[in-house]
Amino acid sequence: MSHLLSTNPRTGTSIETGIQQSTADDVDATAARARVAFAELEGRDRAWRAALLRAMADELEARRAEIVATADSETGLGETRLNGELTRTCFQLRLFADVVVEGSYLEATVDHAGDTAMGSRPDLRRMLIPLGPVAVFGASNFPLAFSVPGGDTAAALAAGCPVVVKAHESHPLTSQLCGAALEAAASEHGAPAGTIAVVYGREAGARLVQHPDITAVGFTGSLGGGKALLDLINQRPDPIPFYGELSGINPLVVTAAAAAERAQEIGSGLAGSFTLGAGQFCTKPGLAFVPRTDGGEAVLAALVSAVEGVGGQVLLNSGIRDNFAAGADRLAALPGVSTLAVGGTADAGFGAQPRVLTIDAAELDDSIAQECFGPLVVVVRYGDDKELLDALSRLEPSLTATLHLGAEEAAGRTELLDSLRKVSGRLVFDGYPTGVAVSWAQHHGGPWPSTNAIHTSVGATSIRRFLRPYAWQGAPQAVLPAELRDGPVDVPRRVDGVLTLPGNE
Amino acid sequence: MSHLLSTNPRTGTSIETGIQQSTADDVDATAARARVAFAELEGRDRAWRAALLRAMADELEARRAEIVATADSETGLGETRLNGELTRTCFQLRLFADVVVEGSYLEATVDHAGDTAMGSRPDLRRMLIPLGPVAVFGASNFPLAFSVPGGDTAAALAAGCPVVVKAHESHPLTSQLCGAALEAAASEHGAPAGTIAVVYGREAGARLVQHPDITAVGFTGSLGGGKALLDLINQRPDPIPFYGELSGINPLVVTAAAAAERAQEIGSGLAGSFTLGAGQFCTKPGLAFVPRTDGGEAVLAALVSAVEGVGGQVLLNSGIRDNFAAGADRLAALPGVSTLAVGGTADAGFGAQPRVLTIDAAELDDSIAQECFGPLVVVVRYGDDKELLDALSRLEPSLTATLHLGAEEAAGRTELLDSLRKVSGRLVFDGYPTGVAVSWAQHHGGPWPSTNAIHTSVGATSIRRFLRPYAWQGAPQAVLPAELRDGPVDVPRRVDGVLTLPGNE
Repeated sequence: MSHLLSTNPRTGTSIETGIQQSTADDVDATAARARVAFAELEGRDRAWRAALLRAMADELEARRAEIVATADSETGLGETRLNGELTRTCFQLRLFADVVVEGSYLEATVDHAGDTAMGSRPDLRRMLIPLGPVAVFGASNFPLAFSVPGGDTAAALAAGCPVVVKAHESHPLTSQLCGAALEAAASEHGAPAGTIAVVYGREAGARLVQHPDITAVGFTGSLGGGKALLDLINQRPDPIPFYGELSGINPLVVTAAAAAERAQEIGSGLAGSFTLGAGQFCTKPGLAFVPRTDGGEAVLAALVSAVEGVGGQVLLNSGIRDNFAAGADRLAALPGVSTLAVGGTADAGFGAQPRVLTIDAAELDDSIAQECFGPLVVVVRYGDDKELLDALSRLEPSLTATLHLGAEEAAGRTELLDSLRKVSGRLVFDGYPTGVAVSWAQHHGGPWPSTNAIHTSVGATSIRRFLRPYAWQGAPQAVLPAELRDGPVDVPRRVDGVLTLPGNE
Repeated sequence: MSHLLSTNPRTGTSIETGIQQSTADDVDATAARARVAFAELEGRDRAWRAALLRAMADELEARRAEIVATADSETGLGETRLNGELTRTCFQLRLFADVVVEGSYLEATVDHAGDTAMGSRPDLRRMLIPLGPVAVFGASNFPLAFSVPGGDTAAALAAGCPVVVKAHESHPLTSQLCGAALEAAASEHGAPAGTIAVVYGREAGARLVQHPDITAVGFTGSLGGGKALLDLINQRPDPIPFYGELSGINPLVVTAAAAAERAQEIGSGLAGSFTLGAGQFCTKPGLAFVPRTDGGEAVLAALVSAVEGVGGQVLLNSGIRDNFAAGADRLAALPGVSTLAVGGTADAGFGAQPRVLTIDAAELDDSIAQECFGPLVVVVRYGDDKELLDALSRLEPSLTATLHLGAEEAAGRTELLDSLRKVSGRLVFDGYPTGVAVSWAQHHGGPWPSTNAIHTSVGATSIRRFLRPYAWQGAPQAVLPAELRDGPVDVPRRVDGVLTLPGNE
């Protein structure tokens, strides 16, 4: 039985946590408790579930100081960032409580029996219902927002699904603390044991996704890690939905007009975005297309100047540090690639130097357009639109694309917009892709390999991933969920084809 | 170059069709035309697309006599059924036109920039956009409703995606006729070439799902066929969404109270349902749980009497005939299984005898609870609720479950309802699962192996499968889709969290 270590990335020193890797029996017992909890949770109403989410937010905030200090010691991300991350997570839990109360997410639909052009139709009523216990894989780079607490956990709980989180090895103590906070809130609120649980270790994660009681998996991490889990899931007798948020190069395009108008702002903004959180964002801009114009030169000058002022950064763990160093060296040594700027060095721990590389658009290929997790951006210089569009057409899809336009040119760039839409899930104008607001309209996903799904892992509609449609045909009123019965209901619903708001039926 | 044969299942005789299997070059050219068509279709508005769907319905109806006669000669399903199937398909195209015009399916959402508890939020706008060219696999058993025309084709076109159908080998002439009707309607309506196309042959189907221009696959067919396609898709560098409607045993439960009240009606209704279309429905009830009571005996007597009056039936092709005969013989020979009734024999072609088998609930296992495509039902006799629930807990999920209840017992059967919900996507009360109405509230899907997705392949929400969310951040008004711009719009949308109907913004 091996204990997990907690390592401080600023120093590289480790301490014993006393947390043991979960055994196969632990995983089986945890999944079984989640199955039993699910049966109980199905009997609770939306108001109860909304209150559970709010109670979890309150409990995380009550333990804020300890959680943030622990997360800082395990990630080196700094207390400002980690406080913001916890605030975001609590905001998300409360937003999802509002979403659950509002009830549109159920997609409640009633078709009364009647005659149609197709013949007589039975009474049909449809609603989304929870899938069952969900496995969530914590990410290294967001210990509080995509880990034990965070997007997938909040979405699954909001849907009515119990959650078993596989903690990330990079922050076991943070995972344990957050898990305890969520469990305490659930218990205090009267939720069944097994509503939320945490398991530890890679073998536990592998067993979890193959466990018959698990009905869906949420994952945020590397393409390789996601593929490995997907392979395990595809070996199940019943392959279950896998929602992976995997990879992205997140292209950023600066037009000649934008460069002429705002070179300083764009150059320094890009430096801030690709070094934010030491470049460990899934939305980090990894490729920046800059025109071969005077304005483009000015963008580069501003970028280089800003990066040279960035001090050494600390990466999350030794594996990420080693991968970054090797990946950055590999890219810098490729034919046609040259180095424009290198930032400061951290003098201890898992330090990394921010880097700006550059290449001509004509030479951009798959070997260069690959995610390098950490503070690195490749500036791609292009001559004209044709060269730009050709290069964009060779990219794999990303979570985001970003476009800096001149003040007057928005309407005329249809081809460029179409090209960026094909390779992204969110298009950012005159801004930066890092920072993913939690809101009703947010979308965080895209075609493979950015995610493997047509769903989002951030925002109100992320709950949809953990629901399945269900239809009742000719059902007696007594067996229908409250939201599908005749008479006034407290959710928007479609009745005989007409969308109707509560109070207007 | 081999020509496809058209075989009349009533006689078993084949004729040369003159239709050639599509070559690899044919498939590549067809997929490329679909890609080019997609770029053009993205510029058309919802009203145009709704009119396209209606024009396709009109054209199919204009060619009704020829289509139905051809389909009857290739499937033996009879003109009454095939006329109904074509009516259903045209109804579906027109319903989807209404869905496109109504516009809720876009999930348009606007979050204006502003301050939140999380900090300042950028302007975010989200909507569903079409995926791109879709490959659709025609099914043998619904030549007009799940084939070249039908659910997947209508849903993908409604979403704004071009469609390449891989025709089923069982009805090439019907596929060709329907394809020509849809192509003529599209061309007349001004749709780009490649909006709808048909390819022929298994190799063409395999190439199609691996083609880089194809962005999603709709499939209705066997579990084995679906798995084979899914394996090919998983080998793509970019695995794309696969929507398979695969398999189902569709349990039907008769309670003691229902049997006591309506034995004759239930027995004869079940006979009609499992022999409808010669049992070649994905929703055919394959297992019927009947209590060991006097009422249960009466249900069986009515079932046996009705089945013995059913004449010989003709299956769709020789493969299905051979599989049915082998599968039925295998089941009948299993320990504990006995034969209750055998229907008449068809004297020519691909005939099959309807069969009723029976077994005790305690002996029900995976070897028996397997789909046997064709007119066969296994009656499972149970003594009490415990025996019933134990047996249900051993079933794999199906598209449907059916429950016949006594007049007064609906409210008291929570455990039974929960148990049936776990293994189905639609729960039918006091009726039969065959016959899937096309409507807003329909759901045709369920956990693996009934489908592999949390989506439906029938009804208004089936369009969702061929859309992906997209978010615009800080976008100038000029680049936004009409449905996301400021000011009044013609679709329901959520603005700053509030669902708003058109005319009420």
